[in-house]
Amino acid sequence: MLMNKIKNEITYCPIGFIKTPFDTSEGMPIQSSFTQAKGAIFLRKEFQKALKGLENFSHIYLLYHFDKARSMKLQVKPFLSEEMLGIFAVRAPNRPNSIGISIVRLKQISAKNDFIEIQFEGADMLNGTPLLDIKPYVMDFDSQTDVRNGWYDSRDIEINQSDNRFTKD
Amino acid sequence: MLMNKIKNEITYCPIGFIKTPFDTSEGMPIQSSFTQAKGAIFLRKEFQKALKGLENFSHIYLLYHFDKARSMKLQVKPFLSEEMLGIFAVRAPNRPNSIGISIVRLKQISAKNDFIEIQFEGADMLNGTPLLDIKPYVMDFDSQTDVRNGWYDSRDIEINQSDNRFTKD
Repeated sequence: MLMNKIKNEITYCPIGFIKTPFDTSEGMPIQSSFTQAKGAIFLRKEFQKALKGLENFSHIYLLYHFDKARSMKLQVKPFLSEEMLGIFAVRAPNRPNSIGISIVRLKQISAKNDFIEIQFEGADMLNGTPLLDIKPYVMDFDSQTDVRNGWYDSRDIEINQSDNRFTKD
Repeated sequence: MLMNKIKNEITYCPIGFIKTPFDTSEGMPIQSSFTQAKGAIFLRKEFQKALKGLENFSHIYLLYHFDKARSMKLQVKPFLSEEMLGIFAVRAPNRPNSIGISIVRLKQISAKNDFIEIQFEGADMLNGTPLLDIKPYVMDFDSQTDVRNGWYDSRDIEINQSDNRFTKD
């Protein structure tokens, strides 16, 4: 029955890559909301028309592939907790499907010769990360109220920079 | 140079699928924040440990593959606008990489014989949709302020139910 669907593999092809100041994960911001670090998307030129209207959004989702993630773990200690937690309860990259999401502040879109450059603020990913998708952030869809943040509400570590526990670099 | 990275394909395998009341897109909610429709994740049993700590979050991201999306379009008219807009400026499924995200309200996690059932509220996807990832929604990471919502702020259509313009069903 339906459970059979989950055997099918799904293949994606990056639409570009993300340039950031972080060639290794040591010292990289752990979350985009904790940093003003600048990054830039190098988007394939063929997608120029697909950006129409994006320039008027202040915030965008980037969906990308954690290509430097270490092998999948069912549980890890995230940066902000001493507790072992399920990988679906944290945002670490060592996931069954290593898709990352960051909400970043859109700064500028410029067409170059061979690609489109999209500058943003809030870079929390490694330089060269393959980009899968861009979506607009819409308050009415994405900003939630009455939120319980689970373990994060009683987090016992306060850091905002990464180390290499989750990545091979 | 780096632009070569984008030629590499990336392959994911669903972690389960999503059961919803919507076998076709006609009448399906267009956004999870606009509906209290109930859905359930049927998660592969091998990921039971990966859920530890998730139960204390009120909201979770579901990342899934729009397996019924029509072919990719660079521009579309979204449900809420009469204007043709870039696919990266809207949330429609006909994307270069057809990944959907929904933020849903977590209700209950129960281990069954052959799978884990995760009940949620805010179903806005088709029944049987292959699930790629679950992430916790964290206010400090995900709730943005000073947001400009682009075309959405001057949207000229008010509906909250889908039709089949974007999907084959």
